[in-house]
Amino acid sequence: MTIVVILIPTVGKNGKYKVNHVNVNLLNDFVLTLFNILLLKILINVFKCSVTIQTMIGNRFRIALLQLNVGADRSKNVENAVSYINKAKSGGAQIVALSECFNSPYGTKFFNDYAENVPDGPSCQALSKAAKATNLYIIGGTIPERADGKLYNTCTIWNPQGQMIAKYRKMHLFDIDIPGRITFKESDSLSAGNELVMFNIGTVKFGIGICYDMRFEELAKLYRQQQCQVLVYPGAFNMTTGPMHWELLQRSRANDNQVFVCAISPARADRGYIAWGHSQVTDPWGKVLAKAGHEEEILYSDINVSECDDARQQIPIFAQRRVDIYNTVLNK
Amino acid sequence: MTIVVILIPTVGKNGKYKVNHVNVNLLNDFVLTLFNILLLKILINVFKCSVTIQTMIGNRFRIALLQLNVGADRSKNVENAVSYINKAKSGGAQIVALSECFNSPYGTKFFNDYAENVPDGPSCQALSKAAKATNLYIIGGTIPERADGKLYNTCTIWNPQGQMIAKYRKMHLFDIDIPGRITFKESDSLSAGNELVMFNIGTVKFGIGICYDMRFEELAKLYRQQQCQVLVYPGAFNMTTGPMHWELLQRSRANDNQVFVCAISPARADRGYIAWGHSQVTDPWGKVLAKAGHEEEILYSDINVSECDDARQQIPIFAQRRVDIYNTVLNK
Repeated sequence: MTIVVILIPTVGKNGKYKVNHVNVNLLNDFVLTLFNILLLKILINVFKCSVTIQTMIGNRFRIALLQLNVGADRSKNVENAVSYINKAKSGGAQIVALSECFNSPYGTKFFNDYAENVPDGPSCQALSKAAKATNLYIIGGTIPERADGKLYNTCTIWNPQGQMIAKYRKMHLFDIDIPGRITFKESDSLSAGNELVMFNIGTVKFGIGICYDMRFEELAKLYRQQQCQVLVYPGAFNMTTGPMHWELLQRSRANDNQVFVCAISPARADRGYIAWGHSQVTDPWGKVLAKAGHEEEILYSDINVSECDDARQQIPIFAQRRVDIYNTVLNK
Repeated sequence: MTIVVILIPTVGKNGKYKVNHVNVNLLNDFVLTLFNILLLKILINVFKCSVTIQTMIGNRFRIALLQLNVGADRSKNVENAVSYINKAKSGGAQIVALSECFNSPYGTKFFNDYAENVPDGPSCQALSKAAKATNLYIIGGTIPERADGKLYNTCTIWNPQGQMIAKYRKMHLFDIDIPGRITFKESDSLSAGNELVMFNIGTVKFGIGICYDMRFEELAKLYRQQQCQVLVYPGAFNMTTGPMHWELLQRSRANDNQVFVCAISPARADRGYIAWGHSQVTDPWGKVLAKAGHEEEILYSDINVSECDDARQQIPIFAQRRVDIYNTVLNK
């Protein structure tokens, strides 16, 4: 862990370069020592520099999972998300994450009507603006995306400058048939994505999946092979699969890959597609760190990714895999 | 499901072939209909045949997990196992399964002293005899095996004729270091096996792993690729990893692969290596069907493997894997 100090020079009256402003990018888990403080004081008092200290995300950060009510009005859904992003900022979050379909009801008949272009559509632009206004990273849940005459279930990720830094399209479509309980065929209207998507926030490496993707252990294992420390799954499990598998799948992915897993659900509605709720953060030992109820709420969690190193060192399963006998491979 | 009828002909007094004995191999989940009963009555009363009805294991069977005390005396350990196999027979079991190291204390310093040849050693021969005497299948937990100057942690499987039908050597050795809690290095004295092992009992396909193998999702996935319906893990988790991961790992393997998982622990001792106990059966939905306490006991479970078909049909994750993008592959 280091402090990144950027000296900004200007030309002084005597024609020589002079440093009169210093940007300090401080990893958020770095504690300033007396020596560092003394150094800054000398810069300020002796060399008459102005100093800006910015916090970069290091091993420790606070994430806020926004478990929100979603209704039929897209503008209202997006406004509500932006208002909760502001609340999460006040709550000390550095990263916020939204649920699957945060701007649209979840259902094959809705996707076409609510779809928009990425990153130019109104929901994306609202996220971009909110990221910039709050100086937060936003993992933007999902929206129905229209592209090349097709529809995708897409997650966009935004940095504090309001730029989209990554985009993931759901790879495994939700087609299931549990007679008398839940039948759903996402592939009736959606196309599947074909790419793993990873991104860095500060020094932390994230991998993205969406909802049903959580059931596919190979996707998570491939992210682990690429050194991800946190997997984020915007999701919307229902009242049948939720109680059966929502918690178990997250604990399985977390424990088998020794990663943090964050899963963000919409709040439970009283009609239409009824989401299970219970947004959850799981640690690299498979232990549930934080879990929401089923109503609208912000779930905060303080994550320390160095716990991944502890788990991986103490139970070194990744290195002990018998890759002489088997492996999980990426074909493309 | 069918009845297999074997007609055993002999030569009659007139020099012609005559059927005077009929073997009926009945799958245990097949219910005799009135028509079948009538047919048998005709064979017996009209054609004067003798009839033997044998039960084969079909979709439904009762398994007994023997969670036993294990001490320093090998003969006593084996005698106790045989006595519990007899009890399990009385309890209606068709298959019995023993724990890891059922004949030996668990510890690297013991393996050499307790090791024996497979299948000629005394522990194996006792299992062979017990299988024949009780007409049961025995999944013989594990014993330290001596072969080619090396030691292995080995599971043997026996049919009701007393023949060894399969042998599996632990593939992932238990080398972990959780400071102040548990440090263990199985590879100090054991060599690792290099083969997946599957076998059929009646119409049911089993795959075998041992204890720490449970942590490696690829092994289970490869068994699933080979159509296994039941995975059996003799194990001996300890008082640190037991409460953390014993139940979770089994539920993960079961749910991700839509298989039954049976894991058999020794009973909890009061000194030496203290096993967690809590032998467990988990169904293909990841639900715990049966779970033992931590003392010596028989855990019975009635398994219906057609539930694998239900789970696989309703949530068809295996077919929905994106093998165009990734796969779990066997290298040898």
